[in-house]
Amino acid sequence: MRSTTGWQADGATGTLRRAALERRDLRPDDIAVRIEYCGVCHTDLHALHAHGSDANGALVPGHEFTGVVTEVGGAVADFSPGDPVAVGNIVDSCGTCPMCEAGQENFCREFPTLTYGGTDRQDGSTTLGGYAREYVVNHRFAYRLPAGLDAAATAPLLCAGVTVWEPLRALGVGPGSTVAVAGLGGLGHLAVKMAAGLGATTSVISRTPDKAEEARDLGAQGFVVSTDPKQMEAVRDRFDVIVDTISAPHDLAPYLRVTAMDGTLSRLGDLGPVTVDTMDLLIGRKKLSSAGSGGRPSTAAMLRFCAEHGITADIELLPSSQVNTALERLERNDVRYRFVLDMSDLD
Amino acid sequence: MRSTTGWQADGATGTLRRAALERRDLRPDDIAVRIEYCGVCHTDLHALHAHGSDANGALVPGHEFTGVVTEVGGAVADFSPGDPVAVGNIVDSCGTCPMCEAGQENFCREFPTLTYGGTDRQDGSTTLGGYAREYVVNHRFAYRLPAGLDAAATAPLLCAGVTVWEPLRALGVGPGSTVAVAGLGGLGHLAVKMAAGLGATTSVISRTPDKAEEARDLGAQGFVVSTDPKQMEAVRDRFDVIVDTISAPHDLAPYLRVTAMDGTLSRLGDLGPVTVDTMDLLIGRKKLSSAGSGGRPSTAAMLRFCAEHGITADIELLPSSQVNTALERLERNDVRYRFVLDMSDLD
Repeated sequence: MRSTTGWQADGATGTLRRAALERRDLRPDDIAVRIEYCGVCHTDLHALHAHGSDANGALVPGHEFTGVVTEVGGAVADFSPGDPVAVGNIVDSCGTCPMCEAGQENFCREFPTLTYGGTDRQDGSTTLGGYAREYVVNHRFAYRLPAGLDAAATAPLLCAGVTVWEPLRALGVGPGSTVAVAGLGGLGHLAVKMAAGLGATTSVISRTPDKAEEARDLGAQGFVVSTDPKQMEAVRDRFDVIVDTISAPHDLAPYLRVTAMDGTLSRLGDLGPVTVDTMDLLIGRKKLSSAGSGGRPSTAAMLRFCAEHGITADIELLPSSQVNTALERLERNDVRYRFVLDMSDLD
Repeated sequence: MRSTTGWQADGATGTLRRAALERRDLRPDDIAVRIEYCGVCHTDLHALHAHGSDANGALVPGHEFTGVVTEVGGAVADFSPGDPVAVGNIVDSCGTCPMCEAGQENFCREFPTLTYGGTDRQDGSTTLGGYAREYVVNHRFAYRLPAGLDAAATAPLLCAGVTVWEPLRALGVGPGSTVAVAGLGGLGHLAVKMAAGLGATTSVISRTPDKAEEARDLGAQGFVVSTDPKQMEAVRDRFDVIVDTISAPHDLAPYLRVTAMDGTLSRLGDLGPVTVDTMDLLIGRKKLSSAGSGGRPSTAAMLRFCAEHGITADIELLPSSQVNTALERLERNDVRYRFVLDMSDLD
């Protein structure tokens, strides 16, 4: 086994504490990555809360990180030590089901192996995430970091970024499309940048007018205050695609009302069960969908697109020792728009 | 006023009784239609049940009928006495909202005027439906009956037919598409004929194997028994479009599971509120939608398509005096697949 250092949850308190961690020895198709930067995702908060109540096994969060290859297994030809790479929230899949064959490993029928809290398909161990100095990963689930992208600000693209990218692409967003992004957080701000980058006329829907200027700075041409009935009425049946990144449960009716005929509301932030009035779908043949994470081909395509368009996350970079502060602030949405941890203090 | 005869609900019992009815004198843009055949729709049952409990105003059901023009208003140039015509469940709309301008009068923002139980936009009267010998209708909401289509078997196309036609067309169904129709009743059997006519590989999903042969006779190439987990597993992620015509509330999870990646389940039969587990949409980016009725352009297109492909409803034709029997049998799904009333006994 290899040893490294990371931030592990204390079972009793849910606080993260610096701890020595083990990584597996490299298999022939593995690479070792020295993690430089790891994003802090809402999922990490959920995992910590769940862990606090069950306390089963070790928990090291973190599933959007960038770093540098330090060693490669004997069967790896596409990476060499020194290569900058990025890893997202999936580190393996069955590889043979129809979803994997379609390049949608995120929908693997045998469930993809998650970057942390997953079960390794070979040795059955629980995966430990990227709040650490090193990660060992099958090379198929590492992506070359394109030149020109800031490594810290790119880390969040690997989870938040691809989660909004896949539905935008699958729904055919491009020039001529009208897109609204509901909620302007980690996912939302990247959805605005990507939709605008794809050539769509892009708006932000927000509860208050506070973020209007930021929305424009991110590339939005329109801004709609959801609590103002007149503004919502003015955009009735307007948006071909609504990327709903609001993380709290909320009534979808007002958002379906502003979805265009034959348009789609893709719900990405709140993944709880959802109830809709069928008439809100029927009138205008509107569609309710969801999406999450990304397959290998679309993750690679997203990174190429972001490099071409100079898109990265707007981040607040903190030393990894401030991880508990980052999580506390994220819990109250006090971040614009994503925390990224700098792992160099773990040396 | 003009006088005619029809079948009107008795407020106390909900039974239909033969009654003298009034129709408005023709406005310049009206035509008078001698109704020959009127289909019996599930909506008629719902209306009768609701009427039994509120008993507010006269109720004459019927919103899918065919007949012959007997008289035209002074401003009507597109119809002449003797023309065979068809009328569906909408007889007027605002004509100026974005939905009407898009030819989707069924989604009129001011709500379309329903063929019965609606409120006339000019005189405020309650519309009385097609279980009658005559109807007076604005010529814009009458459709020329194409030559070669049986007038009795065409009547159900005007509601059940266009309700399945619009989502099939809006979802791009054609050669190369894979369509499943869940539920084989009035809507379902027409969805099978139309999807197959559009060139899609079409299957029926049914609770029991009883209808397998009928499904094939209607044009389905596949038949899946929904209560057999092996059969459902064999078609997992298979269907680009599922036309769900099941009228009772039911769990959508098994149907979403057999919807293809990026595919759509369009729920047409049960229009109550619906709750779904977001993961059933997320995995495979599946879409939940609905639809109902049709706009004028798609109604006309549907009739042309049906004439070209020889598609009409499979009906059981009854004299209109047996309307109460038809409704009782429809209530227990004892019809293959649509009752149509012959109005000639009203003379």
